[in-house]
Amino acid sequence: MFFLSDSTGITAETLGNTLLTQFPGHRFERRTIPFITTVEEAARVVQAIDAVAAAGPRPIVFSTAVNRDIRAILSQSSGHFMDLFGAHIAELEDALQAPASGEPGKAHGVGDAIRYQLRMTAVEYAIEHDDGQSIRALERAELILIAPSRCGKTPTAMYLALQHGILAANFPLIEEDFARRSLPDPLRPFIHKCFGLTSLPVRLSQIRQERRPDTTYASLAQCSYELRNAEEMYESNQVPYVNSASMSVEEISATILQRMQLHH
Amino acid sequence: MFFLSDSTGITAETLGNTLLTQFPGHRFERRTIPFITTVEEAARVVQAIDAVAAAGPRPIVFSTAVNRDIRAILSQSSGHFMDLFGAHIAELEDALQAPASGEPGKAHGVGDAIRYQLRMTAVEYAIEHDDGQSIRALERAELILIAPSRCGKTPTAMYLALQHGILAANFPLIEEDFARRSLPDPLRPFIHKCFGLTSLPVRLSQIRQERRPDTTYASLAQCSYELRNAEEMYESNQVPYVNSASMSVEEISATILQRMQLHH
Repeated sequence: MFFLSDSTGITAETLGNTLLTQFPGHRFERRTIPFITTVEEAARVVQAIDAVAAAGPRPIVFSTAVNRDIRAILSQSSGHFMDLFGAHIAELEDALQAPASGEPGKAHGVGDAIRYQLRMTAVEYAIEHDDGQSIRALERAELILIAPSRCGKTPTAMYLALQHGILAANFPLIEEDFARRSLPDPLRPFIHKCFGLTSLPVRLSQIRQERRPDTTYASLAQCSYELRNAEEMYESNQVPYVNSASMSVEEISATILQRMQLHH
Repeated sequence: MFFLSDSTGITAETLGNTLLTQFPGHRFERRTIPFITTVEEAARVVQAIDAVAAAGPRPIVFSTAVNRDIRAILSQSSGHFMDLFGAHIAELEDALQAPASGEPGKAHGVGDAIRYQLRMTAVEYAIEHDDGQSIRALERAELILIAPSRCGKTPTAMYLALQHGILAANFPLIEEDFARRSLPDPLRPFIHKCFGLTSLPVRLSQIRQERRPDTTYASLAQCSYELRNAEEMYESNQVPYVNSASMSVEEISATILQRMQLHH
């Protein structure tokens, strides 16, 4: 599988990989070739694809190249060429009653500078507010993720920051919170921003075992205790929550954006 | 614009937004509706789209729903329906000589558990090794980003970790390094893993001004000095580098993956 682009290749990879998940029995070798911006480079890429085609099964080529000349060259390789771009752009020109610009892909460039800066600021914010490290500027947070240790708070906050520019803090729920049966004090003014994660005791114990094998911390009993208490705390404070045990950060994030109506 | 999906909606957003960048004169209001997994939900979504269509210009609907029944319902709204999935899946079935599974999108689920775990581990690693905070386990790094302060090291390391599972540390280049005309000592055994970032003095000064206005740190003279020295250091140590001044993290990351041959 080749993912070809005149830009980063992210769109080609994203749609190409999505389509390939529909063929779970197959194993694919994947290669991304980004920044194909001249006809000379396009010709070299065709040579590379032809070499692969000569040596084995016919490769499939996903392309999001915008430029007509470059697309024309790329389509001539001996691979099976799938134009992920041209197929839809004519339809969209028709729907919008306007011509496409034909400029090379800018979808993953800086683009809207304000929106981009928001994302960069959010990454810093997520790092500074990782794992309850700082209670400074919590009033700026758009989201405060809470959960017992190792339920997925950190990567979820990072994903929401990087991809969506969401100012996300994350806070661990610990023994003291459970003993007092209340959320950590610094969060009390911001309960409406909180979202909880929970997991399955067996899954959580497994993850903790990898980190600190044979500790109370990783024991099934402790994990059950913490998750039960966390869920009770979410319920009693009307904090929305989701069981992250079998979910990816992308799925957890999409769920949070939808439930908290956070999409920018 | 509606982005509809039976899963996270990430693929619909990615391709849809890519296509929309081809119409730079237009402003679009965007709404993502993920996890449409039943025909009842699909019918409710159609109602929501019809309400928007009744109130203003005809909305455009990007869908990556896999299930035939759900697609059939979604396609009946008064929006302009663009099936980003069906269009390609038949072509791919033909190329692979195999039927698609028809299962709802799994592209952004946990998927390959080993690959997923790698990404989560990489996020932790990137946080632990942000801004030279730790020199522990540098031998595990696949990439060490180096640059003067505020050239984009942190978000780039985070992006590569989260999206590609790359173990990426990042290290600041500071006054002492320039005075000694050598890379920080802990990096010397790992020069082959280093990748440098540079910027334009005016751009860097602007970014630093926002953080610490009217300081030597943010002055144009200081920024010029640091960037000139950093570039000399990259050159003399044969460390590959890129000027990140007008690049997004996605573009910087795609460049690094390509130049360092890091794609997993």
